[in-house]
Amino acid sequence: MAETVSYDAAMRRALDLAARGPVTGGNPQVGCVLLDASGTVVAEGWHHGAGTAHAEVDALSRVADARGLTAVVTLEPCNHTGRTGPCSEALIAAGVERVVYAVSDPGHESAGGAERLRSAGVEVIPGVLADEVTAFLHIWLTAVARHRPWVTVKWASTLDGRAAAADGTSRWITGTAARQRVHEQRAASDAILVGSGTVLADDPALTARGDGGELLPHQPLPVVVGERAVPADAALRHHPAGLLETGTRDLERVLAALDVRGIRRVYVEGGPTLASAIVAAGLADEYAVYLAPALLGGDRLAIGELGITTMAEARRLVITGVEQLGDDLLVTARPTEGN
Amino acid sequence: MAETVSYDAAMRRALDLAARGPVTGGNPQVGCVLLDASGTVVAEGWHHGAGTAHAEVDALSRVADARGLTAVVTLEPCNHTGRTGPCSEALIAAGVERVVYAVSDPGHESAGGAERLRSAGVEVIPGVLADEVTAFLHIWLTAVARHRPWVTVKWASTLDGRAAAADGTSRWITGTAARQRVHEQRAASDAILVGSGTVLADDPALTARGDGGELLPHQPLPVVVGERAVPADAALRHHPAGLLETGTRDLERVLAALDVRGIRRVYVEGGPTLASAIVAAGLADEYAVYLAPALLGGDRLAIGELGITTMAEARRLVITGVEQLGDDLLVTARPTEGN
Repeated sequence: MAETVSYDAAMRRALDLAARGPVTGGNPQVGCVLLDASGTVVAEGWHHGAGTAHAEVDALSRVADARGLTAVVTLEPCNHTGRTGPCSEALIAAGVERVVYAVSDPGHESAGGAERLRSAGVEVIPGVLADEVTAFLHIWLTAVARHRPWVTVKWASTLDGRAAAADGTSRWITGTAARQRVHEQRAASDAILVGSGTVLADDPALTARGDGGELLPHQPLPVVVGERAVPADAALRHHPAGLLETGTRDLERVLAALDVRGIRRVYVEGGPTLASAIVAAGLADEYAVYLAPALLGGDRLAIGELGITTMAEARRLVITGVEQLGDDLLVTARPTEGN
Repeated sequence: MAETVSYDAAMRRALDLAARGPVTGGNPQVGCVLLDASGTVVAEGWHHGAGTAHAEVDALSRVADARGLTAVVTLEPCNHTGRTGPCSEALIAAGVERVVYAVSDPGHESAGGAERLRSAGVEVIPGVLADEVTAFLHIWLTAVARHRPWVTVKWASTLDGRAAAADGTSRWITGTAARQRVHEQRAASDAILVGSGTVLADDPALTARGDGGELLPHQPLPVVVGERAVPADAALRHHPAGLLETGTRDLERVLAALDVRGIRRVYVEGGPTLASAIVAAGLADEYAVYLAPALLGGDRLAIGELGITTMAEARRLVITGVEQLGDDLLVTARPTEGN
């Protein structure tokens, strides 16, 4: 029993380490702790982002001799050679005696690490703190299991649901604090989806900037949905993360293409046509609705037609957060089961 | 100085007493404390609602001999014979030596009490705790000063601003807790405004009910705005507070007529045509926006046309409260200066 408690504590530490890694990128946030036979932590590691060492290898690099150690890691060690070698082999080669992990690797290419370890004589204990780690990795696990990115639909509207005035003006619906939060949410995304109509109408930059206007370290890839081309002089052509023009309105195809690129988190910035299409198709995993304390009336709606005819068909959500940002509100919500 | 502090404390007590009276009705909530020469409270009173004794008379009724006492009262004693006699005369007749009050009576008929008291040799000290009492009486003072009721516009919509689905179904947009709050807000209003179109379409009861479905003690007067007649078999014809058919869409006329009836607080329950007309006319003093965590799309908007063409003309509000009621949100807001 004492041993189990110790694995729980080590796993909680590994989870803390995991959270130090970036939320963006194709790989999950993973943490690893190495214990000696007495249960003492002798090394820690975490994944610092795509192309760098996985958490297990990061931890192994901090000990001279890993023979006989126990590796406690939040995710099943991978069995896949990507930009780095498989962690299962690294653990075996290092002489690790036991691997404790929380959640199985759902990746079709990377799974099988536990089996490989067992076949090499390493003891494997799965499922420690599985619920906590599953919750922590929810977005990544969902994206990998469904072979499409997690989709957050964002819009800013007045309290009466308008995204712009009758003449199309929409600047400064929300205030500074809300706009800054949008930049942070962009920076925590792998890609930003925008409709070609919005690109033509508003010429948005879609960069993630700090409150001094400076570029944040991580920039999401702007992805233009729709058949119309991005003009040669569009601001998007200077985006630091590049530009992906999909040339299609087929959302499933767009998301499948993003999955292949290792894009797990997509932030949908509209306009209303794209946002409505994503909601209507049932592809929204989360909503970030910025509500400005203003009324506009008119027909420039943040969400247009959803193909719903009667109340029973309403898309029901669960509000997961309400935050006051300056004078504005940010309402975060997720679909209820089956919505 | 000791005396001033004592008046402050007595006024704070009078304010607490005032809050025991009903918020509805033509008269304000007023409290009164009688002090003897040593500053000890010898009696308390408050106004229990239209047709009953005013706070000063209520307090005077609790002492055998008021000669030489100081009356501390939240509002300037009235100088007007309505359903009850003028308080200034009652205080003079009782032999009160000094009257301390917070806020002047803004009523055109009832004002002049301080002058009357002074002319009878009573010492008068106005303005004690004036800011606190003014804030407490804000709605009543505003209504009396403007000769029209305070107007709260309420609507319930989805997060995308829809009040109904395409087929007109609107029942159960919000949940039980939000609907119960609407009943409480009705009970705290003198009148409910509803458009004749909504009466014809929805046949609402517009009663204030408790969560067991029972009628609450105070029922607001339903007031139908518009030219179409209320059908003979409409639920509104059985409303316990009666029914006022205005026969007009002229909002200024409707509100002036309500002012004459002593109606200070009006709760606008829609539909969208009436709500939008009130907002567009700049007659909304407060907003109670119930937001359901759902999306509907379509053209059944909670707020329709406001005659706004560009963002600079948006009606800007200040959010004064956000409350989670079951799964729903209640956002309370007021217009910013000049909106």
